[in-house]
Amino acid sequence: MKIAMIAFEGFTDVDLFMPWDLFYRVKDPTYAAYDGEWDVRICAAEPRFASYSGLVIDRHEPLAWAAEADAVFVVSGGGSRAKIRDPGWLAQLSLDPARQLIAAIDSGALILAALGLLEGLSATTYPSIFAELEAMGVRTERRPLVIHGNLATGGGCLATQDLAAWIVERLIGPDAARQILDSIAKVA
Amino acid sequence: MKIAMIAFEGFTDVDLFMPWDLFYRVKDPTYAAYDGEWDVRICAAEPRFASYSGLVIDRHEPLAWAAEADAVFVVSGGGSRAKIRDPGWLAQLSLDPARQLIAAIDSGALILAALGLLEGLSATTYPSIFAELEAMGVRTERRPLVIHGNLATGGGCLATQDLAAWIVERLIGPDAARQILDSIAKVA
Repeated sequence: MKIAMIAFEGFTDVDLFMPWDLFYRVKDPTYAAYDGEWDVRICAAEPRFASYSGLVIDRHEPLAWAAEADAVFVVSGGGSRAKIRDPGWLAQLSLDPARQLIAAIDSGALILAALGLLEGLSATTYPSIFAELEAMGVRTERRPLVIHGNLATGGGCLATQDLAAWIVERLIGPDAARQILDSIAKVA
Repeated sequence: MKIAMIAFEGFTDVDLFMPWDLFYRVKDPTYAAYDGEWDVRICAAEPRFASYSGLVIDRHEPLAWAAEADAVFVVSGGGSRAKIRDPGWLAQLSLDPARQLIAAIDSGALILAALGLLEGLSATTYPSIFAELEAMGVRTERRPLVIHGNLATGGGCLATQDLAAWIVERLIGPDAARQILDSIAKVA
């Protein structure tokens, strides 16, 4: 399986790095120990880019890599606003919910809306972003996770867990999804 | 205030990046909007190092920077085992709970134990690490957060939230601590 994580200059750290770490645990023998193909890449237009807080990372692949992915996870962050106004950036994202799972956290939903992927569907987002998403013609729901077939949106940074688990459950199964979530739980 | 985050080759992504992001929100005008000095740095012996999953970042400061910090947050990860067997690495960490807040998540507690900071105290850690911590002579408690004065340990990756909030509450106050936690909550 190929998983594309779509990121950009000005992403919110936790919205990329928490699901990145959860996806890593799918292969890790300590956690879900999945032994099939599992290839997770951070895709961006910028070869090297910074989070909103200033952490700098290198992309693994350009955006075009996402076109062949089995699942696409769109991150959030203030930098999303420049991207939804950039037709050249949007054009590099060739996504198809008929054959791909597509998930977006918080302002990542604005990117799905700009791509026309939320037409006729409802979505959730970050509390302060509902009005912005509605202004793009999307019906909103104040829930952590809204799923329509192969398309899911998450609201509130910690809902990245739900989105990652949804992708893993759909691609591998419920046991692997539960194992990665359990692996980051607080000690009880 | 100066906050040192102690990291190393082989750290667990979420254990560094989630509290890093929470600490960033202390200054962010959208969240806690604290207007005092608030300087958070990732400190490591390696100028450039990779997480257990292969993400590469640059350190901000060498380990010695932590000696003058108001609070020190020790991350977790498989790489911690090489560090607790490396007297040269440990000697660069000059920490003093009499004048600093010191927090450690999961296997970060092994580092506190190796530094002699847990003598006579109890601590928590990751579920699979309790026996290892006990073998270092530390009494363990199966709880998300164990606090003794200026020293706190967290068990399970998501307990990094509790540790970050504990540091922010002690250095700034309960409102700022609540605001950073609320800012990552799932939409309800």
